[in-house]
Amino acid sequence: MKIAVLASGRGSNLESLLAAEEAGGLAGAEISLVFSDQPLALALERAKSRDKKAVCLSPRDFSSKVEYEDALVNLLRAEDIDLVVLAGYMRITGGTLLAAYGGRMINIHPSLLPSFPGLEAQAQAVTAGVKISGCTVHLVDAGMDSGPIIAQRAVPVYGEDTAAMLSARILVEEHKLLPQVVSWIAAGKVVLSKGAISFPDEKSLGSWIKEGIDI
Amino acid sequence: MKIAVLASGRGSNLESLLAAEEAGGLAGAEISLVFSDQPLALALERAKSRDKKAVCLSPRDFSSKVEYEDALVNLLRAEDIDLVVLAGYMRITGGTLLAAYGGRMINIHPSLLPSFPGLEAQAQAVTAGVKISGCTVHLVDAGMDSGPIIAQRAVPVYGEDTAAMLSARILVEEHKLLPQVVSWIAAGKVVLSKGAISFPDEKSLGSWIKEGIDI
Repeated sequence: MKIAVLASGRGSNLESLLAAEEAGGLAGAEISLVFSDQPLALALERAKSRDKKAVCLSPRDFSSKVEYEDALVNLLRAEDIDLVVLAGYMRITGGTLLAAYGGRMINIHPSLLPSFPGLEAQAQAVTAGVKISGCTVHLVDAGMDSGPIIAQRAVPVYGEDTAAMLSARILVEEHKLLPQVVSWIAAGKVVLSKGAISFPDEKSLGSWIKEGIDI
Repeated sequence: MKIAVLASGRGSNLESLLAAEEAGGLAGAEISLVFSDQPLALALERAKSRDKKAVCLSPRDFSSKVEYEDALVNLLRAEDIDLVVLAGYMRITGGTLLAAYGGRMINIHPSLLPSFPGLEAQAQAVTAGVKISGCTVHLVDAGMDSGPIIAQRAVPVYGEDTAAMLSARILVEEHKLLPQVVSWIAAGKVVLSKGAISFPDEKSLGSWIKEGIDI
Protein backbone atom coordinates (compact mmCIF):
# COMPACT_ATOMS: atom_id res chain seq x y z
CA MET A 1 0.00 0.00 0.00
CA LYS A 2 1.42 3.36 -1.09
CA ILE A 3 0.58 6.36 1.04
CA ALA A 4 0.63 10.09 0.37
CA VAL A 5 0.66 12.39 3.39
CA LEU A 6 -0.72 15.91 2.88
CA ALA A 7 0.36 18.51 5.43
CA SER A 8 0.33 22.28 5.60
CA GLY A 9 2.43 22.91 8.70
CA ARG A 10 5.09 21.51 10.96
CA GLY A 11 4.17 17.91 10.13
CA SER A 12 4.32 16.32 13.56
CA ASN A 13 1.75 13.73 12.55
CA LEU A 14 3.80 13.06 9.42
CA GLU A 15 6.78 12.52 11.72
CA SER A 16 4.84 9.94 13.74
CA LEU A 17 4.03 8.09 10.50
CA LEU A 18 7.63 8.23 9.28
CA ALA A 19 8.85 6.92 12.64
CA ALA A 20 6.26 4.13 12.59
CA GLU A 21 7.26 3.16 9.06
CA GLU A 22 10.93 2.98 10.07
CA ALA A 23 10.03 0.85 13.07
CA GLY A 24 7.99 -1.54 10.93
CA GLY A 25 4.76 -0.34 12.47
CA LEU A 26 2.73 0.38 9.34
CA ALA A 27 2.00 -3.24 8.41
CA GLY A 28 4.13 -2.91 5.30
CA ALA A 29 2.57 0.31 4.01
CA GLU A 30 5.01 2.72 2.41
CA ILE A 31 4.97 6.51 2.62
CA SER A 32 5.65 7.27 -1.04
CA LEU A 33 4.87 10.98 -1.21
CA VAL A 34 4.67 13.97 1.08
CA PHE A 35 2.72 16.88 -0.29
CA SER A 36 2.16 20.41 0.95
CA ASP A 37 0.27 23.46 -0.24
CA GLN A 38 2.78 25.62 1.70
CA PRO A 39 6.28 25.98 0.20
CA LEU A 40 7.82 26.56 3.64
CA ALA A 41 6.03 23.73 5.45
CA LEU A 42 8.38 21.92 7.81
CA ALA A 43 6.65 18.74 6.66
CA LEU A 44 8.51 19.00 3.34
CA GLU A 45 11.85 19.21 5.14
CA ARG A 46 11.01 16.20 7.26
CA ALA A 47 10.25 14.21 4.11
CA LYS A 48 13.45 15.24 2.35
CA SER A 49 15.56 14.38 5.38
CA ARG A 50 14.29 10.82 5.04
CA ASP A 51 14.74 10.74 1.27
CA LYS A 52 11.02 10.75 0.65
CA LYS A 53 9.59 12.43 -2.41
CA ALA A 54 8.35 15.86 -1.30
CA VAL A 55 6.23 18.05 -3.56
CA CYS A 56 4.62 21.42 -3.06
CA LEU A 57 1.92 22.91 -5.24
CA SER A 58 0.79 26.35 -4.24
CA PRO A 59 -2.89 27.05 -4.95
CA ARG A 60 -2.02 30.63 -5.83
CA ASP A 61 -0.19 29.31 -8.90
CA PHE A 62 -3.47 27.92 -10.24
CA SER A 63 -6.44 29.82 -11.59
CA SER A 64 -9.02 27.73 -9.72
CA LYS A 65 -9.39 25.14 -7.00
CA VAL A 66 -10.40 22.58 -9.64
CA GLU A 67 -7.18 23.20 -11.54
CA TYR A 68 -5.10 22.97 -8.36
CA GLU A 69 -6.75 19.71 -7.31
CA ASP A 70 -6.43 18.32 -10.85
CA ALA A 71 -2.68 18.79 -10.58
CA LEU A 72 -2.66 17.18 -7.13
CA VAL A 73 -4.70 14.20 -8.34
CA ASN A 74 -2.36 13.74 -11.32
CA LEU A 75 0.55 13.72 -8.92
CA LEU A 76 -1.13 11.14 -6.66
CA ARG A 77 -1.95 8.94 -9.64
CA ALA A 78 1.56 9.22 -11.05
CA GLU A 79 2.83 7.82 -7.74
CA ASP A 80 0.19 5.05 -7.67
CA ILE A 81 -1.08 6.27 -4.31
CA ASP A 82 -3.57 3.95 -2.59
CA LEU A 83 -4.29 5.99 0.52
CA VAL A 84 -4.23 9.74 1.13
CA VAL A 85 -3.63 10.84 4.71
CA LEU A 86 -4.55 14.41 5.63
CA ALA A 87 -2.26 15.24 8.53
CA GLY A 88 -2.78 18.92 9.23
CA TYR A 89 -3.72 19.74 5.65
CA MET A 90 -5.48 23.05 6.11
CA ARG A 91 -7.67 23.10 3.03
CA ILE A 92 -11.19 21.90 2.50
CA THR A 93 -11.05 19.03 0.03
CA GLY A 94 -12.95 19.89 -3.11
CA GLY A 95 -14.97 17.77 -5.49
CA THR A 96 -12.02 16.98 -7.75
CA LEU A 97 -9.91 15.41 -5.02
CA LEU A 98 -12.95 13.65 -3.55
CA ALA A 99 -14.03 12.23 -6.90
CA ALA A 100 -10.58 10.69 -7.34
CA TYR A 101 -9.76 9.66 -3.76
CA GLY A 102 -13.05 9.65 -1.85
CA GLY A 103 -13.12 6.38 0.08
CA ARG A 104 -9.32 6.29 0.10
CA MET A 105 -8.63 9.45 2.10
CA ILE A 106 -8.52 9.86 5.88
CA ASN A 107 -8.11 12.88 8.15
CA ILE A 108 -7.01 13.37 11.74
CA HIS A 109 -8.88 15.97 13.79
CA PRO A 110 -8.08 17.17 17.34
CA SER A 111 -11.46 16.60 19.02
CA LEU A 112 -13.86 13.80 19.81
CA LEU A 113 -16.05 14.33 16.77
CA PRO A 114 -18.88 15.16 16.29
CA SER A 115 -17.97 17.73 18.98
CA PHE A 116 -15.90 20.67 17.73
CA PRO A 117 -15.45 20.22 13.99
CA GLY A 118 -13.63 22.92 12.03
CA LEU A 119 -10.82 25.23 12.98
CA GLU A 120 -9.28 25.59 16.44
CA ALA A 121 -11.00 22.53 17.84
CA GLN A 122 -8.90 22.62 21.02
CA ALA A 123 -9.85 26.25 21.72
CA GLN A 124 -13.48 25.33 21.07
CA ALA A 125 -13.19 22.54 23.65
CA VAL A 126 -11.59 24.81 26.27
CA THR A 127 -14.28 27.45 25.70
CA ALA A 128 -17.06 24.87 25.95
CA GLY A 129 -15.68 23.70 29.29
CA VAL A 130 -15.67 20.00 28.46
CA LYS A 131 -13.73 17.75 30.85
CA ILE A 132 -12.85 15.12 28.24
CA SER A 133 -11.67 15.75 24.69
CA GLY A 134 -9.41 13.84 22.31
CA CYS A 135 -8.75 13.12 18.66
CA THR A 136 -10.49 11.36 15.80
CA VAL A 137 -9.40 9.72 12.56
CA HIS A 138 -12.20 9.62 10.01
CA LEU A 139 -12.87 8.97 6.37
CA VAL A 140 -13.01 12.25 4.44
CA ASP A 141 -16.30 13.17 2.82
CA ALA A 142 -17.69 16.39 1.41
CA GLY A 143 -18.59 17.78 4.84
CA MET A 144 -16.42 19.53 7.41
CA ASP A 145 -14.84 16.78 9.57
CA SER A 146 -18.05 14.81 9.11
CA GLY A 147 -17.03 11.50 7.54
CA PRO A 148 -17.42 8.06 9.17
CA ILE A 149 -15.28 7.71 12.29
CA ILE A 150 -12.56 5.05 12.24
CA ALA A 151 -11.00 5.52 15.68
CA GLN A 152 -10.70 7.96 18.58
CA ARG A 153 -8.56 8.55 21.67
CA ALA A 154 -9.51 10.57 24.74
CA VAL A 155 -7.64 12.97 27.03
CA PRO A 156 -8.66 14.83 30.17
CA VAL A 157 -9.23 18.59 30.07
CA TYR A 158 -8.31 20.55 33.19
CA GLY A 159 -9.66 23.88 34.36
CA GLU A 160 -6.36 25.66 33.98
CA ASP A 161 -5.86 24.43 30.41
CA THR A 162 -5.16 26.87 27.63
CA ALA A 163 -5.83 25.81 24.05
CA ALA A 164 -2.08 25.29 23.65
CA MET A 165 -1.85 23.04 26.72
CA LEU A 166 -4.79 20.96 25.53
CA SER A 167 -3.36 20.82 21.99
CA ALA A 168 -0.10 19.40 23.33
CA ARG A 169 -1.93 16.75 25.37
CA ILE A 170 -4.10 15.73 22.40
CA LEU A 171 -1.10 15.66 20.07
CA VAL A 172 0.49 12.88 22.13
CA GLU A 173 -2.59 10.77 21.39
CA GLU A 174 -2.71 11.81 17.73
CA HIS A 175 0.77 10.42 17.31
CA LYS A 176 -0.43 7.04 18.55
CA LEU A 177 -3.77 7.09 16.73
CA LEU A 178 -2.77 7.91 13.17
CA PRO A 179 -0.04 5.25 12.70
CA GLN A 180 -2.32 2.70 14.35
CA VAL A 181 -5.18 3.44 11.94
CA VAL A 182 -2.86 3.41 8.90
CA SER A 183 -1.50 0.02 9.96
CA TRP A 184 -5.06 -1.28 10.42
CA ILE A 185 -5.94 -0.16 6.90
CA ALA A 186 -2.76 -1.69 5.46
CA ALA A 187 -3.49 -4.95 7.27
CA GLY A 188 -7.12 -5.04 6.13
CA LYS A 189 -8.52 -4.67 9.64
CA VAL A 190 -10.35 -1.55 8.51
CA VAL A 191 -11.76 -1.51 4.99
CA LEU A 192 -12.58 1.86 3.45
CA SER A 193 -15.00 2.58 0.66
CA LYS A 194 -16.78 5.67 -0.56
CA GLY A 195 -18.82 7.00 2.37
CA ALA A 196 -18.42 3.90 4.53
CA ILE A 197 -15.98 1.91 6.61
CA SER A 198 -16.11 -1.64 7.86
CA PHE A 199 -14.15 -3.62 10.43
CA PRO A 200 -13.94 -7.26 9.25
CA ASP A 201 -12.38 -8.33 12.54
CA GLU A 202 -13.70 -5.69 14.92
CA LYS A 203 -13.19 -7.78 18.02
CA SER A 204 -9.43 -7.68 17.56
CA LEU A 205 -9.60 -3.88 17.80
CA GLY A 206 -11.72 -3.76 20.96
CA SER A 207 -8.89 -3.72 23.45
CA TRP A 208 -7.23 -0.93 21.51
CA ILE A 209 -10.41 1.15 21.55
CA LYS A 210 -10.50 0.69 25.30
CA GLU A 211 -6.84 1.61 25.56
CA GLY A 212 -7.63 4.84 23.76
CA ILE A 213 -9.61 5.87 26.82
CA ASP A 214 -7.27 4.33 29.36
CA ILE A 215 -4.57 6.95 28.92
CA MET B 1 -27.31 20.55 52.22
CA LYS B 2 -30.76 19.23 51.40
CA ILE B 3 -31.25 17.54 48.04
CA ALA B 4 -34.31 16.78 45.96
CA VAL B 5 -33.97 14.12 43.27
CA LEU B 6 -36.38 14.34 40.33
CA ALA B 7 -36.84 11.15 38.31
CA SER B 8 -39.37 9.90 35.78
CA GLY B 9 -38.39 6.26 35.52
CA ARG B 10 -36.70 3.38 37.22
CA GLY B 11 -34.45 5.67 39.24
CA SER B 12 -31.15 3.83 38.98
CA ASN B 13 -29.25 7.09 39.39
CA LEU B 14 -31.40 7.85 42.44
CA GLU B 15 -30.38 4.45 43.78
CA SER B 16 -26.70 5.33 43.35
CA LEU B 17 -27.27 8.53 45.34
CA LEU B 18 -29.18 6.72 48.09
CA ALA B 19 -26.43 4.12 48.35
CA ALA B 20 -23.76 6.83 48.48
CA GLU B 21 -25.68 8.68 51.19
CA GLU B 22 -25.93 5.50 53.27
CA ALA B 23 -22.22 4.86 52.85
CA GLY B 24 -21.36 8.41 53.94
CA GLY B 25 -20.28 9.32 50.41
CA LEU B 26 -22.25 12.55 49.90
CA ALA B 27 -20.10 14.78 52.16
CA GLY B 28 -22.97 15.15 54.58
CA ALA B 29 -25.63 16.10 52.03
CA GLU B 30 -29.05 14.66 52.72
CA ILE B 31 -31.56 13.38 50.18
CA SER B 32 -34.70 15.01 51.59
CA LEU B 33 -37.17 14.54 48.79
CA VAL B 34 -37.73 12.29 45.82
CA PHE B 35 -40.11 13.65 43.23
CA SER B 36 -41.62 12.16 40.09
CA ASP B 37 -43.99 13.30 37.39
CA GLN B 38 -44.95 9.65 36.83
CA PRO B 39 -47.18 8.02 39.47
CA LEU B 40 -45.80 4.56 38.72
CA ALA B 41 -42.12 5.53 38.63
CA LEU B 42 -39.98 2.93 40.35
CA ALA B 43 -38.00 5.86 41.76
CA LEU B 44 -40.89 6.58 44.15
CA GLU B 45 -40.80 3.01 45.45
CA ARG B 46 -37.07 3.17 45.97
CA ALA B 47 -37.50 6.34 48.04
CA LYS B 48 -40.29 4.89 50.18
CA SER B 49 -38.32 1.74 50.84
CA ARG B 50 -35.67 3.94 52.47
CA ASP B 51 -38.22 6.05 54.36
CA LYS B 52 -37.57 9.04 52.16
CA LYS B 53 -40.33 11.51 51.41
CA ALA B 54 -41.67 10.64 47.94
CA VAL B 55 -44.06 12.91 46.09
CA CYS B 56 -45.67 12.68 42.68
CA LEU B 57 -47.34 15.52 40.85
CA SER B 58 -48.79 14.61 37.49
CA PRO B 59 -48.68 17.45 34.97
CA ARG B 60 -52.02 16.31 33.58
CA ASP B 61 -53.60 17.39 36.86
CA PHE B 62 -52.59 20.99 36.17
CA SER B 63 -53.95 23.37 33.58
CA SER B 64 -50.53 24.61 32.48
CA LYS B 65 -46.81 23.95 32.79
CA VAL B 66 -46.47 27.12 34.86
CA GLU B 67 -49.05 25.87 37.35
CA TYR B 68 -47.40 22.46 37.53
CA GLU B 69 -43.97 23.94 38.12
CA ASP B 70 -45.38 26.41 40.67
CA ALA B 71 -46.62 23.47 42.70
CA LEU B 72 -43.25 21.72 42.34
CA VAL B 73 -41.35 24.86 43.41
CA ASN B 74 -43.64 25.26 46.44
CA LEU B 75 -42.89 21.67 47.36
CA LEU B 76 -39.13 22.18 47.01
CA ARG B 77 -39.30 25.35 49.12
CA ALA B 78 -41.41 23.70 51.79
CA GLU B 79 -38.63 21.13 52.16
CA ASP B 80 -35.87 23.79 52.19
CA ILE B 81 -34.19 22.16 49.20
CA ASP B 82 -30.73 23.53 48.39
CA LEU B 83 -29.93 21.42 45.34
CA VAL B 84 -32.18 19.84 42.72
CA VAL B 85 -30.79 16.79 40.94
CA LEU B 86 -32.43 15.76 37.67
CA ALA B 87 -31.79 12.02 37.44
CA GLY B 88 -33.76 10.80 34.47
CA TYR B 89 -36.41 13.52 34.78
CA MET B 90 -37.92 13.44 31.34
CA ARG B 91 -39.34 16.95 31.13
CA ILE B 92 -37.83 20.13 29.83
CA THR B 93 -37.48 22.49 32.78
CA GLY B 94 -39.61 25.59 32.28
CA GLY B 95 -39.08 29.18 33.29
CA THR B 96 -40.83 28.79 36.63
CA LEU B 97 -38.55 26.04 37.90
CA LEU B 98 -35.48 27.77 36.44
CA ALA B 99 -36.38 31.12 38.03
CA ALA B 100 -36.56 29.45 41.44
CA TYR B 101 -33.75 26.87 41.17
CA GLY B 102 -31.54 28.00 38.26
CA GLY B 103 -27.97 27.83 39.53
CA ARG B 104 -28.98 25.14 42.05
CA MET B 105 -30.10 22.42 39.65
CA ILE B 106 -27.94 19.78 37.93
CA ASN B 107 -28.70 17.12 35.32
CA ILE B 108 -27.02 13.90 34.26
CA HIS B 109 -26.98 13.10 30.55
CA PRO B 110 -25.76 9.89 28.86
CA SER B 111 -23.30 11.37 26.35
CA LEU B 112 -20.11 13.40 26.26
CA LEU B 113 -21.85 16.72 25.73
CA PRO B 114 -21.92 18.79 23.55
CA SER B 115 -22.25 15.65 21.40
CA PHE B 116 -25.71 14.07 21.37
CA PRO B 117 -27.98 16.30 23.47
CA GLY B 118 -31.67 15.44 23.74
CA LEU B 119 -33.48 12.14 23.69
CA GLU B 120 -31.90 8.73 23.05
CA ALA B 121 -28.36 9.99 23.32
CA GLN B 122 -26.95 6.45 23.34
CA ALA B 123 -28.77 5.54 20.11
CA GLN B 124 -27.51 8.80 18.59
CA ALA B 125 -23.95 7.80 19.54
CA VAL B 126 -24.30 4.31 18.05
CA THR B 127 -25.76 5.73 14.84
CA ALA B 128 -22.99 8.32 14.58
CA GLY B 129 -20.39 5.56 14.88
CA VAL B 130 -18.32 7.24 17.60
CA LYS B 131 -15.74 5.04 19.32
CA ILE B 132 -15.85 6.91 22.65
CA SER B 133 -18.94 8.15 24.46
CA GLY B 134 -19.79 8.67 28.12
CA CYS B 135 -21.84 10.77 30.50
CA THR B 136 -21.98 14.37 31.65
CA VAL B 137 -23.25 16.18 34.74
CA HIS B 138 -24.03 19.81 34.00
CA LEU B 139 -25.77 22.81 35.47
CA VAL B 140 -29.28 23.14 34.06
CA ASP B 141 -30.05 26.23 32.00
CA ALA B 142 -32.84 27.12 29.58
CA GLY B 143 -31.32 25.11 26.72
CA MET B 144 -31.50 21.40 25.97
CA ASP B 145 -28.61 19.75 27.88
CA SER B 146 -26.60 22.91 27.23
CA GLY B 147 -25.59 24.21 30.68
CA PRO B 148 -22.00 24.50 31.95
CA ILE B 149 -20.32 21.11 32.30
CA ILE B 150 -19.28 20.05 35.79
CA ALA B 151 -17.80 16.60 35.11
CA GLN B 152 -17.72 13.77 32.57
CA ARG B 153 -16.72 10.13 32.32
CA ALA B 154 -15.88 8.20 29.16
CA VAL B 155 -16.62 4.68 27.90
CA PRO B 156 -15.57 2.81 24.77
CA VAL B 157 -18.12 2.11 22.04
CA TYR B 158 -17.73 -1.14 20.12
CA GLY B 159 -18.90 -1.96 16.63
CA GLU B 160 -21.36 -4.61 17.78
CA ASP B 161 -22.97 -2.29 20.35
CA THR B 162 -26.69 -1.74 20.36
CA ALA B 163 -28.08 1.36 22.06
CA ALA B 164 -29.06 -0.87 24.99
CA MET B 165 -25.55 -2.29 25.34
CA LEU B 166 -24.01 1.17 25.25
CA SER B 167 -26.63 2.47 27.70
CA ALA B 168 -25.68 -0.24 30.19
CA ARG B 169 -21.98 0.56 29.87
CA ILE B 170 -22.56 4.29 30.31
CA LEU B 171 -24.88 3.70 33.26
CA VAL B 172 -22.05 2.11 35.25
CA GLU B 173 -20.16 5.40 34.89
CA GLU B 174 -23.25 7.52 35.63
CA HIS B 175 -23.54 5.73 38.95
CA LYS B 176 -20.01 6.86 39.86
CA LEU B 177 -20.27 10.34 38.38
CA LEU B 178 -23.47 11.66 39.94
CA PRO B 179 -22.69 10.87 43.63
CA GLN B 180 -19.17 12.21 43.10
CA VAL B 181 -20.44 15.53 41.76
CA VAL B 182 -23.06 15.85 44.51
CA SER B 183 -20.38 15.26 47.14
CA TRP B 184 -18.16 17.88 45.49
CA ILE B 185 -20.98 20.41 45.61
CA ALA B 186 -21.76 19.54 49.25
CA ALA B 187 -18.08 19.91 50.14
CA GLY B 188 -17.72 23.23 48.31
CA LYS B 189 -15.30 21.85 45.73
CA VAL B 190 -17.71 22.90 43.01
CA VAL B 191 -19.64 26.15 43.47
CA LEU B 192 -22.77 26.66 41.42
CA SER B 193 -24.40 29.93 40.50
CA LYS B 194 -26.86 31.01 37.85
CA GLY B 195 -25.30 30.17 34.50
CA ALA B 196 -21.82 29.47 35.86
CA ILE B 197 -19.79 27.04 37.89
CA SER B 198 -16.42 27.43 39.57
CA PHE B 199 -13.93 25.02 41.06
CA PRO B 200 -12.20 26.73 44.02
CA ASP B 201 -9.75 23.88 44.37
CA GLU B 202 -9.67 22.47 40.88
CA LYS B 203 -6.32 20.78 41.27
CA SER B 204 -7.78 18.40 43.83
CA LEU B 205 -10.23 17.19 41.17
CA GLY B 206 -7.64 16.63 38.45
CA SER B 207 -6.86 13.03 39.26
CA TRP B 208 -10.54 12.24 39.34
CA ILE B 209 -11.08 13.81 35.92
CA LYS B 210 -8.28 11.63 34.62
CA GLU B 211 -9.79 8.60 36.33
CA GLY B 212 -13.03 9.30 34.44
CA ILE B 213 -11.15 8.44 31.28
CA ASP B 214 -9.03 5.67 32.77
CA ILE B 215 -11.91 3.20 33.00
